[in-house]
Amino acid sequence: MTLTVVGSIAFDAVRTPFGERERMLGGSAVHFSLAASFFCDVRIVGPVGEDFGEEEYAVLHARAINTDDIERVLGGRTFFWRGHYDYDLNTAHTEATELNVFASFEPKLSPASREAEFLFLANIQPDLQRQVREQCTGARFSAMDSMNLWIDTARDSLVRTIGAVNAVLLNDAELRVLTGEPNLLRAARAVLAMGPSAVVAKRGEYGAMLFTADHVFSLPAYPLETVLDPTGAGDSFAGAFLGYLGGHAGGVDDVEALKRAVAYGTAMASFNVEEFGTERVRRLSGEEIAARVAELERMTRFSDLPAALRG
Amino acid sequence: MTLTVVGSIAFDAVRTPFGERERMLGGSAVHFSLAASFFCDVRIVGPVGEDFGEEEYAVLHARAINTDDIERVLGGRTFFWRGHYDYDLNTAHTEATELNVFASFEPKLSPASREAEFLFLANIQPDLQRQVREQCTGARFSAMDSMNLWIDTARDSLVRTIGAVNAVLLNDAELRVLTGEPNLLRAARAVLAMGPSAVVAKRGEYGAMLFTADHVFSLPAYPLETVLDPTGAGDSFAGAFLGYLGGHAGGVDDVEALKRAVAYGTAMASFNVEEFGTERVRRLSGEEIAARVAELERMTRFSDLPAALRG
Repeated sequence: MTLTVVGSIAFDAVRTPFGERERMLGGSAVHFSLAASFFCDVRIVGPVGEDFGEEEYAVLHARAINTDDIERVLGGRTFFWRGHYDYDLNTAHTEATELNVFASFEPKLSPASREAEFLFLANIQPDLQRQVREQCTGARFSAMDSMNLWIDTARDSLVRTIGAVNAVLLNDAELRVLTGEPNLLRAARAVLAMGPSAVVAKRGEYGAMLFTADHVFSLPAYPLETVLDPTGAGDSFAGAFLGYLGGHAGGVDDVEALKRAVAYGTAMASFNVEEFGTERVRRLSGEEIAARVAELERMTRFSDLPAALRG
Repeated sequence: MTLTVVGSIAFDAVRTPFGERERMLGGSAVHFSLAASFFCDVRIVGPVGEDFGEEEYAVLHARAINTDDIERVLGGRTFFWRGHYDYDLNTAHTEATELNVFASFEPKLSPASREAEFLFLANIQPDLQRQVREQCTGARFSAMDSMNLWIDTARDSLVRTIGAVNAVLLNDAELRVLTGEPNLLRAARAVLAMGPSAVVAKRGEYGAMLFTADHVFSLPAYPLETVLDPTGAGDSFAGAFLGYLGGHAGGVDDVEALKRAVAYGTAMASFNVEEFGTERVRRLSGEEIAARVAELERMTRFSDLPAALRG
């Protein structure tokens, strides 16, 4: 199967209590692509500037990601984000955002990207997301991310986009703000009522939850002793989640497959945060992913030996 | 098996966004006892004042809890706590604490309480906890809770008490403050190094984790649509955790039993928060507990169908 992702390609400057990087490859579509590349064929769509060079392309090509639809804007500069995290690694503090070529981005998809069976709309303006969704007539399963900016400034458009995809992946706080419902279960039900058949709540160090019409699934994060940089964790999660669905043989309406996809997303996000930016995922192996998913399964399983309950 | 718990017996005045109660039965030993009573024989030890009457005793006796070691202080008043929660139900805001008879509490245990095989030292001053531990020569498994107050004001004593029990149950934030280690896995390892063979991190709406020398187990909370009042959730968790260990046939060194105990604790805490104070747990049935643990197992289980991973 082929999976198309449309989103940002960026350079990030990141500082955490454990180190810093002045310029590293990042962006939602990059983190997503690298993660998804372990499971299926991936096509990345997004704009870059002239500062995006052979070194950056090489990172994607090393994972066999198709970069034909990366649009290189002559005279332009690549999207740039600068931010830091304090000891509460759940919260990113943005210091600078330079949209650069991303400001005028109008997604142009080649026929091959439009015909992909799987589609991920990373966090971009919801009108653009919907334009892409409409172009991708071959997609039998589409999913999306978003952010508070669009919930605050383009909510109606965002709700329409949500109605056009199969699955929505958002942070738990974003689900609450989007729906005005502090209870996560009710918030997820409200988003399901907008149209998608699955909602995934990403909860950072606390794990993730999956909601469908008939099922609730909850998985804690993989516990780590060392977390250096959470940047890209959500996109890595999404990449493995969609990638798993795109790579496995069964149907996407199978809730067991969705649960396993959450497990692969959880494992991938845990690798992502162990080092800065894409550093860990780019040298990851399939064996390591499989081993971590198996360990996650062991760490969360209990057998219910019924107690002799009184009363 | 018999389980002795030493801790506070209180009246609570609680306000949440969903309602309020001006005077309800509470206290760590009360919430613990009610939860544990579904699994084994329970003896509650703690002081009350003359305002603690037949109505309150009746709640405990209805669950067959032995109250012989409740010390009723003539002319005294029962411990009183007033607090509220905002929409972030994870954080209790204390408005008033009246220690009353609790200020001069010196635990006096009857022979029957001292000979119990299981012992829980609820959150009281750590010197008192250790005095109780030393009195209870019959205890083959002991566990304890604590709070930030004692971490800040009596840390050395607290560490000695931790060294004298088999299991420590604390909030994740308390584990971090106690050890000065922001990473939960490292914090738990640091507490294990103080002597106990098991550490449980209670994470409120995010669930709980169990740490032993060789195992890490992580369980999310049972997802609820309605949470009215979190008061007593941690003590209800502890009551079902210890109660399960006290009621089941296997050994307490069996990590599978500890995992199941976490599951029963998680289920019990979820019932506790559905209504105010003890209101839900006091009319709970064993069937409801068993059904929720089974549902929790279904909600958290995934079968790992290996993906055809690339690279």
